[in-house]
Amino acid sequence: MRPFRAFFERNCVLLPFADRLDAAVRRCRNPVLVGLDPRAESLPAGILADLPEQRRASWAETAAAYGRFCRGVIDVVAPLVPAVKPQAAFFEQLGPDGMTVLAEVIAYAQQNGLLVILDGKRNDIGSTATAYAQGMLGSGGQSPWGADALTVSPYLGDDSLQPFIDVACQRAAGVFVLVKTSNPGGKMLQDLVAEGTVPFSPRRKLGQSPLTQAPAKKQPIYRHVADYVERQAAATVAACGYGAVGAVVGATYPAQLAELRAAMPHTLFLVPGFGSQGGTARDVAAAFDTAGRGAVVNNSRGIIFAHALKPYSERYGAARWQEAIEAATRDMIDQLRADTPAGKR
Amino acid sequence: MRPFRAFFERNCVLLPFADRLDAAVRRCRNPVLVGLDPRAESLPAGILADLPEQRRASWAETAAAYGRFCRGVIDVVAPLVPAVKPQAAFFEQLGPDGMTVLAEVIAYAQQNGLLVILDGKRNDIGSTATAYAQGMLGSGGQSPWGADALTVSPYLGDDSLQPFIDVACQRAAGVFVLVKTSNPGGKMLQDLVAEGTVPFSPRRKLGQSPLTQAPAKKQPIYRHVADYVERQAAATVAACGYGAVGAVVGATYPAQLAELRAAMPHTLFLVPGFGSQGGTARDVAAAFDTAGRGAVVNNSRGIIFAHALKPYSERYGAARWQEAIEAATRDMIDQLRADTPAGKR
Repeated sequence: MRPFRAFFERNCVLLPFADRLDAAVRRCRNPVLVGLDPRAESLPAGILADLPEQRRASWAETAAAYGRFCRGVIDVVAPLVPAVKPQAAFFEQLGPDGMTVLAEVIAYAQQNGLLVILDGKRNDIGSTATAYAQGMLGSGGQSPWGADALTVSPYLGDDSLQPFIDVACQRAAGVFVLVKTSNPGGKMLQDLVAEGTVPFSPRRKLGQSPLTQAPAKKQPIYRHVADYVERQAAATVAACGYGAVGAVVGATYPAQLAELRAAMPHTLFLVPGFGSQGGTARDVAAAFDTAGRGAVVNNSRGIIFAHALKPYSERYGAARWQEAIEAATRDMIDQLRADTPAGKR
Repeated sequence: MRPFRAFFERNCVLLPFADRLDAAVRRCRNPVLVGLDPRAESLPAGILADLPEQRRASWAETAAAYGRFCRGVIDVVAPLVPAVKPQAAFFEQLGPDGMTVLAEVIAYAQQNGLLVILDGKRNDIGSTATAYAQGMLGSGGQSPWGADALTVSPYLGDDSLQPFIDVACQRAAGVFVLVKTSNPGGKMLQDLVAEGTVPFSPRRKLGQSPLTQAPAKKQPIYRHVADYVERQAAATVAACGYGAVGAVVGATYPAQLAELRAAMPHTLFLVPGFGSQGGTARDVAAAFDTAGRGAVVNNSRGIIFAHALKPYSERYGAARWQEAIEAATRDMIDQLRADTPAGKR
């Protein structure tokens, strides 16, 4: 089956990202996003090649181990889930060797039919943002990193986000803007209540009626960002009803998930925080629309390091880490099917 | 002189970043930060090796050209200025080959006695932020990228910034948090006025009296971030009077520069926006304290692509691009000495 899926994905590359993700979720019958967050200290024994005592692995050796490990994860999850999310930080931690492996892992995932959402949380101004976007967004040889989508941070404002959105639209890729993050400290800025409006001047209108400046509102910062993202999503909407611009909304705030789902009908949600950060299937249920669409739910450590987590550690242990990953993935799929509208698909 | 400077810098690596930067500014008698923003379309003729007609340079060829160009810039500016700021985006745009060159450029700059502030605007939560910080911060073999300092973005909140600050303190490195950016769109979030307070619980106290929660204030978001940064700077202060945590404050908002300088007496400023973005020496004067310390002023395109800018393009042309860079650097130094308190040093 895998070669067919890979063929399918590669030949659908010109469909908008939202449609490709929607099709992949429908095909897999689940919205699980497996986070590729390799950490040297958590790798199953044997992945980091045996080293002489008292010698730490070099950055290059660790990077090679990350490559072996991530390929092993992809081999297991590719038949099960629609997409993976490599976390750039863990590869970047190892210097250029790590970045070389990151590009290889992205390509390997896509060869195995997975969509790749690169978690880089990049941002910068104007032409510098364009450089990030051109480097990272666009599969099938359109860019050297080749990600299908990228996470970006909004602090620098609309002219730092527009270049990512423009490149995403040109290359049938996606952008997920941080809106309400899963960490406790996210509230520092995101929950401050401010009166005002965010500017919006879409460069692309795609035949829709012109969008006007929103009226000033008194609301938390994350809602201001949400308003901006939703309008960008509506302006870039694909056949599935969702736009090229999505939002990162943490599973750890179920009430805000529901509030934002209602306020952002054209915005795909990337929901982190499931599993090790405490989010459950019930917590993320509100991220989906009534048809069970509109969100992917990320789990990183709870899947890729399942060999070290109960009950999988007892059943499989480190030597059978790939079986542990498969079991954890299937359990998460079952939970989302049972306790969220995603089970309707 | 250069070997001595390189020896000096390498052997002072355990001095706090703020003290090293202060010493370098004093030694050079100017606070100029040269931005290394290579762009393929702007390189002087001959840097991108002659290619057969109708063939675009590959990412690897362009990356090699960026390496040649940046080393050429460093050769010119190392005897003149204290520090350079490579922009990660332009290297990342070229994929893994670009990242390999970025690491080489950082090392080459340090071998030539320059401090390196890596402009990555990175951020993420908790242990992921730690991975970025461990990968990027710390010269002299402490990290694979080896930067002396890194720019970071605050949207994810205090628990996304603390890991960068912790690693910076462990490794005598620095962190510059985006506060008020130089781009027009920066106001989208940064200028929204919110009532509230940002949490602050420094993990390191360095023998100072405990810092209390700030009272709630109604002020723009950038001022809330500024309050947080200043308290982190005060908690990590070095002998020179400035902390390990600095702020990015654009030259394009002189009034806010003055306001923030007064509100942030322990915070080093990284001031972008000089030159091509419109900021002048008079605009950045307010970034310095009365002794002419406390800020570095970045210029990227206005220096490295001086061969294409009047009056240097007329005087030197593309073939003598290094002479154009030297003249533009000396002119900026003269302007800052004439029109800012930095001239007092």
